[in-house]
Amino acid sequence: MRVLILGGDGYLGWPTAMRFSGKGHEVAVVDNFARRRWHELAGTDSLTPIASLEDRIAAWREVSGKTIEAHVGDVSEGTFVADLVRSFQPETIIHYGEQPSAPWSMQSVDHAVITQQANVIGTLKLLWAIREYVPEAHLVKLGTMGEYGTPNIDIEEGYIEIEHKGRRDVLPFPKLPGSFYHLSKVHDSHNIHFACRIWGLRATDLNQGVVYGIETPETKLDERLLTRYDYDQAFGTALNRFCVQAMIGHPLTVYGSGGQTRGFLNIVDTLQCVELTADNPADAGEFRVYNQFTESFSVAGLAEKVRHAGGEIGVDVTVENVTNPRVELEEHYYNPVHTKLPSLGLQPTLLSETLIESVLHTIERYKHRVIAAGIEPSTQWRPQLAQPAK
Amino acid sequence: MRVLILGGDGYLGWPTAMRFSGKGHEVAVVDNFARRRWHELAGTDSLTPIASLEDRIAAWREVSGKTIEAHVGDVSEGTFVADLVRSFQPETIIHYGEQPSAPWSMQSVDHAVITQQANVIGTLKLLWAIREYVPEAHLVKLGTMGEYGTPNIDIEEGYIEIEHKGRRDVLPFPKLPGSFYHLSKVHDSHNIHFACRIWGLRATDLNQGVVYGIETPETKLDERLLTRYDYDQAFGTALNRFCVQAMIGHPLTVYGSGGQTRGFLNIVDTLQCVELTADNPADAGEFRVYNQFTESFSVAGLAEKVRHAGGEIGVDVTVENVTNPRVELEEHYYNPVHTKLPSLGLQPTLLSETLIESVLHTIERYKHRVIAAGIEPSTQWRPQLAQPAK
Repeated sequence: MRVLILGGDGYLGWPTAMRFSGKGHEVAVVDNFARRRWHELAGTDSLTPIASLEDRIAAWREVSGKTIEAHVGDVSEGTFVADLVRSFQPETIIHYGEQPSAPWSMQSVDHAVITQQANVIGTLKLLWAIREYVPEAHLVKLGTMGEYGTPNIDIEEGYIEIEHKGRRDVLPFPKLPGSFYHLSKVHDSHNIHFACRIWGLRATDLNQGVVYGIETPETKLDERLLTRYDYDQAFGTALNRFCVQAMIGHPLTVYGSGGQTRGFLNIVDTLQCVELTADNPADAGEFRVYNQFTESFSVAGLAEKVRHAGGEIGVDVTVENVTNPRVELEEHYYNPVHTKLPSLGLQPTLLSETLIESVLHTIERYKHRVIAAGIEPSTQWRPQLAQPAK
Repeated sequence: MRVLILGGDGYLGWPTAMRFSGKGHEVAVVDNFARRRWHELAGTDSLTPIASLEDRIAAWREVSGKTIEAHVGDVSEGTFVADLVRSFQPETIIHYGEQPSAPWSMQSVDHAVITQQANVIGTLKLLWAIREYVPEAHLVKLGTMGEYGTPNIDIEEGYIEIEHKGRRDVLPFPKLPGSFYHLSKVHDSHNIHFACRIWGLRATDLNQGVVYGIETPETKLDERLLTRYDYDQAFGTALNRFCVQAMIGHPLTVYGSGGQTRGFLNIVDTLQCVELTADNPADAGEFRVYNQFTESFSVAGLAEKVRHAGGEIGVDVTVENVTNPRVELEEHYYNPVHTKLPSLGLQPTLLSETLIESVLHTIERYKHRVIAAGIEPSTQWRPQLAQPAK
C-alpha cells in the first residue's frame, strides 16, 4: 500500500519508514527537520550520530534495494500537505509530525503557541486534505497516554460508558492533560473524532506510553540507518534519559518522589503497534482509540531497575530525587486498559534487565557524544509568578 | 474595577461595555473589527445600522458622561494582548473576542484554520499574559452550550461525577462539539482549565446558549449606541434570523425536521449573567463552568412561536423545512443543568409572544436594510466529497 509518514525523520518516524518500506510498501516521508533545529538552538543533540535524511534514504537503498520518497516541508503551512496528499494518494497516513515534548511546550508563551499551532493546525489541514483527496485513507495518529492525566478511575481506550441519573451513553473519555503539548494532542483527538463523525473519515488515535530503546532490526543494518536517541531535559524521556545518566556517572534525576506511574513500551513495539493498526484499518466514520503501551512503571521503580542493571555490568549508579519541575501528582491511582492492540496480535517485548544492559552497552559506544549540560530540568511548569504591578 | 472586554465591538461585547461603564467601572474594549470585515467580504451586514467604534464611544460619552477606552488589534497576534494586559492591569477580563460562527468555520480549510487559530491561539496568549502580569485577575470566558453536543444523558455544568468499576472521580464533562467553531471552544476550555490547575489562575467558562434580542437598556439610549443584529446564514442564529425572515415575507428556514433542541437566552440576560459572574469571581486555581441559558426550545417550536407572533401583528408567516446543511441529530434527548447562574441571582427574561412582537416591531424599522441573498444556508457540513483520483 501507499504509506505517507509525517515526521519521517524522527525517533519513531524513521524506523517506521524503514519497516514499511522493508515490507514492500510504497513509502513517502515528510519532515520539516524541526527537531534537528530545536536541538541546535538549545545546544543539545541526539546521542546517536544520525545521518541526514538524504543520506539515510541513500543508505537504505544500498542496504535494502528499496526507495523511500522524501518531502521537506511543514504540514501546518500553506497548502503543502494538501498538495502532497493529492499527488501521493496515500492509503495509510501515519502522523508523527508534531512537536513532541511537554517541557519544550512549557518554556514560554512562544513555545506553547508554536506547539499548539504546529500540532493542531497541522492536523486540521491534514484532515481537510484527506477529506478532499483521499477520503478512504486510514489516518494513524500518534497521541499520548498523557492526554488522560491521572484520574481516580480506570482509564479506558478513548471512550467510557457513563450511567448518569438513570440514563446511559458512551462518550469520549474525559481528559486532564498535563502540559500545553499534551493539550495539543487532546485538541487533535477532538478534531479528528469530529472529522470521522461528520465526514466519514477513518482514523485510529494511538495513545502511546513513554517509548524507550535505541535500536530496531532495521537501524542495526548500517550505522547510517541509526535513529535519533534523545536524553536532554526537553526531548529525552524517563528511561532513555536514565540510561544515559547511568553511563556518564550522572545521578538518575527522578522528579519528586518518583511515585508517578506511566505506561511504557519498547520502540520495537511501537513499530509493531503501528503496523498492526495500519494492517487493520478503521471503518469509514470510525474513530478508534488504542492505548499503546505494554507495561506500567513508577519513575522511581524504573530508576531502581537501571541502577540494578548498571551494577550487573559494573557501573555504579546513584539516584537523586530532584525538585519536580512539573505540576503533577506524585502518588496516584493508575490502571489504564490496554487490550485492543494485544487483541490485534501485539506480542510485547517486555522490559528486562538484559534489555536495559543491552541499551547501556549501546550507549557506551556513543557516550563521548553526551552533552551533560542539557540534562538538568531547566523548564519549570510553575515558575515564580511576576508580582502584579498594581 | 478595571474591566477589559475582548471583542468589545460585537453583538454582546458592545452592550457589555456600556453596562460595565454605566455601573462606574473603568472599561477598556479591544477589537480587530473582524466581524465587520467578514460581513463586507460576504456581502452581508448587520440589520441595525451600527456606528463605528469611535462614534459609539463618543456617543456613549455624550449620553452617559463616561469614557470607554478602545484598543484596536488582534489578540492572537504578536504581543498585542500581553502589552495591553500589562499596561491596563485589568481585574476582570471578559473574553468575547473570537470567531463566533459554526457555519463560517465549516466553509473551507482556511475558515476552519482561521477559526481555531484566532480562538485557540488568542486565548492561549491571553492566559500567558494573565499569568505574567495579572495573575489575580478573573477571566470570564464565553464558551457555548454547543461544546457538549447532544449526549443521551443530562448535561452537567462542566464536570460530572463518574462511578466506574467501583471507583469514583469528578472529571470534565465529555464533549461532542458539532463544528470547527465549537471545537475551538472545547480546546479553549481545556487550555483555560489547565492554566487554572497549574498556575492557579481564576476563570469562569460561560457555556452560553443561543442569544436572541435586539436591544438592551443602554442601546436604546441613542441610535448611535445600537448593537449589531445578524440574520445571515453565517452569523445569524435561529430566533434572530426567523424574526427577520418573518418581517420580509421570507419563509422561516427550519433546518431538517426542526427537532433540534437548544438552550436560549435573551441578550439582556447575557449581560446579567456576565455581570453576576464578574461580581462573584472564581477562587484562585478555580475553573468554574456555568451553563448560561434560561429556556430550551426546539427549532421547530421556535419557528411556530414566531409564526404565531407574526399573526398577532398582522404579518403572514410561513415555515419551510429546508435540507439540513449541518450534520446533527434532529431528534435527541436534551436536559442540561443550569442552576449555577440562578443561584447567583439571575432573574430570567423569558421568551414571550409580546417580546417576539417587540423584536418584530424593531425589525420593521430597519427592514429596508435587509440583504435577502445572505439568508439561505450556503455552507454544507458534509459537501459532496471529491472522488479519490486513484
